[in-house]
Amino acid sequence: MSGTGQEAGAMPPGAADGPAGRALAARFRRIARLRQVERVLGWDQRVMMPAGAAALRGDQLAELELMRQDILVAPDMADLLDAAEGEAAAAPDPWWQANLREMRRMCRQAGAVPSDLLVAKARAVAAGEMAWRAARAEDRFDAMAGPLRAVIDAVRDWADALAAAQGCSRYDALLDQYDPGAKAATILPLFADLADTIRQVLPEILERQAAAPPAVQPPAVPTARQADAARALAAFLGFDFRHGRLDESLHPFTSGSLGDVRITTRFDAGDPMSGLLAVAHETGHALYEAGLPAAWRDQPAGRARGMILHESQSLLCERQLMRLPGVLDWLAGDLAGRFGAAPAWSAANLRRLASRVIPGLIRVEADEVTYPLHILLRTELEQALLAGDLAVDDLPGAWADRMHDLLGVSVPDDRRGCLQDIHWPSGAFGYFPTYTLGALAAVQLFEAAAGTQKAAGGADADHETILAWMGRNVHGAASSADTDGILQAATGAPLGSAAFKRHIRATYLT
Amino acid sequence: MSGTGQEAGAMPPGAADGPAGRALAARFRRIARLRQVERVLGWDQRVMMPAGAAALRGDQLAELELMRQDILVAPDMADLLDAAEGEAAAAPDPWWQANLREMRRMCRQAGAVPSDLLVAKARAVAAGEMAWRAARAEDRFDAMAGPLRAVIDAVRDWADALAAAQGCSRYDALLDQYDPGAKAATILPLFADLADTIRQVLPEILERQAAAPPAVQPPAVPTARQADAARALAAFLGFDFRHGRLDESLHPFTSGSLGDVRITTRFDAGDPMSGLLAVAHETGHALYEAGLPAAWRDQPAGRARGMILHESQSLLCERQLMRLPGVLDWLAGDLAGRFGAAPAWSAANLRRLASRVIPGLIRVEADEVTYPLHILLRTELEQALLAGDLAVDDLPGAWADRMHDLLGVSVPDDRRGCLQDIHWPSGAFGYFPTYTLGALAAVQLFEAAAGTQKAAGGADADHETILAWMGRNVHGAASSADTDGILQAATGAPLGSAAFKRHIRATYLT
Repeated sequence: MSGTGQEAGAMPPGAADGPAGRALAARFRRIARLRQVERVLGWDQRVMMPAGAAALRGDQLAELELMRQDILVAPDMADLLDAAEGEAAAAPDPWWQANLREMRRMCRQAGAVPSDLLVAKARAVAAGEMAWRAARAEDRFDAMAGPLRAVIDAVRDWADALAAAQGCSRYDALLDQYDPGAKAATILPLFADLADTIRQVLPEILERQAAAPPAVQPPAVPTARQADAARALAAFLGFDFRHGRLDESLHPFTSGSLGDVRITTRFDAGDPMSGLLAVAHETGHALYEAGLPAAWRDQPAGRARGMILHESQSLLCERQLMRLPGVLDWLAGDLAGRFGAAPAWSAANLRRLASRVIPGLIRVEADEVTYPLHILLRTELEQALLAGDLAVDDLPGAWADRMHDLLGVSVPDDRRGCLQDIHWPSGAFGYFPTYTLGALAAVQLFEAAAGTQKAAGGADADHETILAWMGRNVHGAASSADTDGILQAATGAPLGSAAFKRHIRATYLT
Repeated sequence: MSGTGQEAGAMPPGAADGPAGRALAARFRRIARLRQVERVLGWDQRVMMPAGAAALRGDQLAELELMRQDILVAPDMADLLDAAEGEAAAAPDPWWQANLREMRRMCRQAGAVPSDLLVAKARAVAAGEMAWRAARAEDRFDAMAGPLRAVIDAVRDWADALAAAQGCSRYDALLDQYDPGAKAATILPLFADLADTIRQVLPEILERQAAAPPAVQPPAVPTARQADAARALAAFLGFDFRHGRLDESLHPFTSGSLGDVRITTRFDAGDPMSGLLAVAHETGHALYEAGLPAAWRDQPAGRARGMILHESQSLLCERQLMRLPGVLDWLAGDLAGRFGAAPAWSAANLRRLASRVIPGLIRVEADEVTYPLHILLRTELEQALLAGDLAVDDLPGAWADRMHDLLGVSVPDDRRGCLQDIHWPSGAFGYFPTYTLGALAAVQLFEAAAGTQKAAGGADADHETILAWMGRNVHGAASSADTDGILQAATGAPLGSAAFKRHIRATYLT
């Protein structure tokens, strides 16, 4: 029963000043609440739900998605949007304008794809994910080739329908799904330039690292005790347990919404830092969600902008903040207090552990220097697959060749090659680039925040000041502008690689 | 995305053979899935949700409820129902007929109450529950009197609107909310007769109990170890952990739906049997939900019939089955194995513990003999409050007088008097009777099931045979008939007190 929390998510008075605007706000509030519910159910599915309930939960989520879709494609929606724009023309409010823009975008996308294409894609993806699990477990790429071909065909048709409605290319339509407005024409040159730089500096980084004292591997710690440390770290970074939870799951993720944000991690008894860094990462995602403007919580303009800025916030916490002296000193003291003094828990060693560079086969284990090369490879190959320039049967070979070329490693089997990620079999083409773009944005934002602190006569960057800056410039901006607009306003420039390159040199070569 | 679990919840082919029938089935499938989602969210709210998310969750649940309401009051619903009845007239299928009947009932109720009355009731209840928590904590009835008056006024208006639409009395409209078709004219004479019997036999029961060897109180057991025993007991009784969970919560409850049923309990280190009996109780609720017909899962006819049969199944497990020699022998062995041999864990002592009769002040701690007197008191007083025959200010006195009269106990304070239950401040008038009616139904059903087993040449009743009988005669019947119809078909008689009276004599006076 409501009447209670209404206020927290209510738009500022006067934002939608007219009957059409108010009607639209009510419809999109319903959509927002359905999404919030879906996110709780998604969390439950991966953390709490009994295994036998998978099909039931699938039906429930499909129904909720359909209900959102039904609202967006209602026949009177176009007229309502026109009328609301008319109402708002007299005294335009920038947030309400952004809200109307996002509403139009959502309606355009919902109306773009015939339902038979959606069903075909959902079916292909369900089969693709199932085939991937088996193929990966048995290291049999051939078992996934057919299902992956079907996924690519379905994604192609779906993306073409989106592209036609938006007047853009197929790949741009896919990029737009994960970060509205992202364009291949901007991204690809950025990636190529970045790869050149990395390949140029990597040998020297490895040389210097070999000559420096090696990091001391931490002792094993029982996972239950790691969980306490993880909770303390999340709280230290600003995670609010009155409005959130931390649980364990197979793969770390963040779900929930502003007011109820839930993060997960996994613990490895033999490698205590991996669980802690994963918690720092998810805490970054959580702080973004928790920092969205409460007044716009239930409207499109109040949503997180996209995967680029989301990933920027998680990487900011995991990489930039976890290297700050203030954070490392606190963590060193906390871990030594919990687990007993040990050389591994010194701040200097924690920094060394967080800065090791090791060219390897597995993307999720990669360091920040080599990670962009993993993404470049995937971006190239997924474009080729979609364009039909690369046959699915030739994927393992192309993967191995390019890994060797970019990272100098030999791919011993497909499990450690093109079977390692679930993204393609689950239809997520266009997603990979956001990882590297997020890493670039993280550094660009950190540099600007730290520069602001310094310019204001402050001392060295501290995590609280940096995060408060992110709250004002990124979290609070929500979807009031596009990604480049938010970055431009916050840092004075659109997304670029200059700050990242400076960071690599400063961190690894000085 | 769906296409996967669809089959499990699909109606038998041909059940709704016509366009109107199929359209209705689709609308009510959506309603069913929303309810399933609400039940998961309700579980989450009480077991997992961070405290600060209460208002947000309230908004989400209110939105989902409104979406269900919107479907039920759609302007074309009456025409669709008429058309579907026409389609079904040629070859009537009893389940589909029941489904249409339930659909009509839901639409009638949804359309009966103007939304301002619903809002007024929701507001009064929110304030009433809050006032109750404070009043109970401080033992200050006066702090709850005003809010309770407001709840009663709101419930009265709401019930009158329902009563007008259904052509019944105000109290019958309330009873009907918890058990469709329940009538005061049937219930009240049953309660009076039962109270006479109980008050007549109670002195002799207490006398015999005083003369018999007392039950040995079990030793304290850490709650974590109790949880393992609780899990084992639930599984022994047939709870399927592949499709369900057992967690801890402040008050035990059952939520979720067929395919994903979730029960909770609370543990008391000093009283290990209380948590175990609560688990047996909730397992009974869970087995009912899990035993509903899968093919009708997403339709009104597939829902549990009402609170009377629901409570009958929980009490059957907690009381009837937990006294069967086969169950007690298993439990005695299991507990001794887990916690070490002790006189308290003998089957005979467990039976004695489960059969103690102690007239007391608190309903939720009452034994099965005195429990109906607690309910009689509440039923009388809630009718008087609703009718205006009892002023709220006079409630504490009336409560104390009647407790003394019925149970011979003196009420020392309102916390142990009329402040002990949340039902009235939360607007649940008409709910209390289902507890006693459920207890009568439990014994009536158990007697019939055991009789069937005996008549078939079987040995003494065993829990698996009894539960299989319940599955066929109660769980599987879902809402295909009303409560009395299901009891008539299962036991040969509508709900009555004869079996219960026989049970009391056989258990406590022979």
